[in-house]
Amino acid sequence: MQDKHSFDALRAEIRAFAQAREWEQFHTPKNLAMAMMVEAAELVEPFQWLTPEQSQALDARTRAQVGEEIADVLIYLTRLADVLGIDPLQAAFDKIKVNALKYPVEKSRGHNRKYDQLD
Amino acid sequence: MQDKHSFDALRAEIRAFAQAREWEQFHTPKNLAMAMMVEAAELVEPFQWLTPEQSQALDARTRAQVGEEIADVLIYLTRLADVLGIDPLQAAFDKIKVNALKYPVEKSRGHNRKYDQLD
Amino acid sequence: MQDKHSFDALRAEIRAFAQAREWEQFHTPKNLAMAMMVEAAELVEPFQWLTPEQSQALDARTRAQVGEEIADVLIYLTRLADVLGIDPLQAAFDKIKVNALKYPVEKSRGHNRKYDQLD
Amino acid sequence: MQDKHSFDALRAEIRAFAQAREWEQFHTPKNLAMAMMVEAAELVEPFQWLTPEQSQALDARTRAQVGEEIADVLIYLTRLADVLGIDPLQAAFDKIKVNALKYPVEKSRGHNRKYDQLD
Repeated sequence: MQDKHSFDALRAEIRAFAQAREWEQFHTPKNLAMAMMVEAAELVEPFQWLTPEQSQALDARTRAQVGEEIADVLIYLTRLADVLGIDPLQAAFDKIKVNALKYPVEKSRGHNRKYDQLD
Repeated sequence: MQDKHSFDALRAEIRAFAQAREWEQFHTPKNLAMAMMVEAAELVEPFQWLTPEQSQALDARTRAQVGEEIADVLIYLTRLADVLGIDPLQAAFDKIKVNALKYPVEKSRGHNRKYDQLD
Repeated sequence: MQDKHSFDALRAEIRAFAQAREWEQFHTPKNLAMAMMVEAAELVEPFQWLTPEQSQALDARTRAQVGEEIADVLIYLTRLADVLGIDPLQAAFDKIKVNALKYPVEKSRGHNRKYDQLD
Repeated sequence: MQDKHSFDALRAEIRAFAQAREWEQFHTPKNLAMAMMVEAAELVEPFQWLTPEQSQALDARTRAQVGEEIADVLIYLTRLADVLGIDPLQAAFDKIKVNALKYPVEKSRGHNRKYDQLD
């Protein structure tokens, strides 16, 4: 039995949402990537003038707004992956393995240099 | 027992990755939102000159690249939600309910108008 | 005498606008880059569900909106360049020269391949 | 006689560049908006992990990179405005007037609240 609160359940809900509205015609990978990106920027917007410290202590209203924008990005990202037949969780686990090789703990600890600038 | 291929497992892996490298100091919500957004744009980049049809028929190389960028967005999005104490899956399920009210099936079917322009 | 409708005049107006409001404190390069990017996404938003053809035939309302977003991007881009002491027009002319070398006419004509994929 | 270092001259050079390569077919407003946005994100990227102070004291290498990205954004923004028949300088001057009404000096001085939150 499927977990109601799983990534698979989310993908299924989003797919059904689009199908019920006959929106598959608009859901090309190109359009979905754009829509995801627009939502990503809306998630950045509340942070743009904040100090680092302020961004760590959001008021309740801003935090709720940020939560909605996180949701929007996740929804479009999930939908984009779905139409491309990509499993985003698996892709993320695979990428972490790649990142671990690019950023070995000993060389990366405590600073923010890019992998091509590690001594 | 936790599912190894779950959102919770992904969040835990990403958190451990950052802790091992002492990167929490860089992982302010502001910086993570920026990083997520930069990855979102990298996900858009392969699509920018494609026709809608070409975006639906990616060659293997581009599709693999897109998969990696989906992973990057998901990783930063998960990390951002984690430092803010937000559950992105729950946020997404909640948002779908809101969207269903904004876009009733009867009024939204088959076109791409925004909710504030539905007759 | 300075041209009233020049890039220099624009930079001066924007600078005066920020100074009058004592906004220099918020106008770090980091924050301005974020703000510019958020406006860039707002410029993308009206296009996200359009076909290529629809994007070439905007209705008056959308076209006006797009004009305002172009303005917003240009304002933040000009301000960012100003606080960094960069001349954006000169930078653009220089970049076109670089692009001309990366994309020789004979090899680039009529297709959209990246410079590293030209035969 | 036209100023060689003007916005008009830049627009003309970019237009000629595209024509020589027969790239008008790819330069739909939709595609150009995407390309501009991707460059905007590349301009954000060097800043993502920097403190506000670090972003104000870029090393020479990063500053040069930022200059190139500013150029890229300006080039695509100029081209997008050109294919839409919009004058970006005029749009920016007009927008500053609108902003001055939204952000009166007395109410906006010294803080970063949005116009809809000015008492």
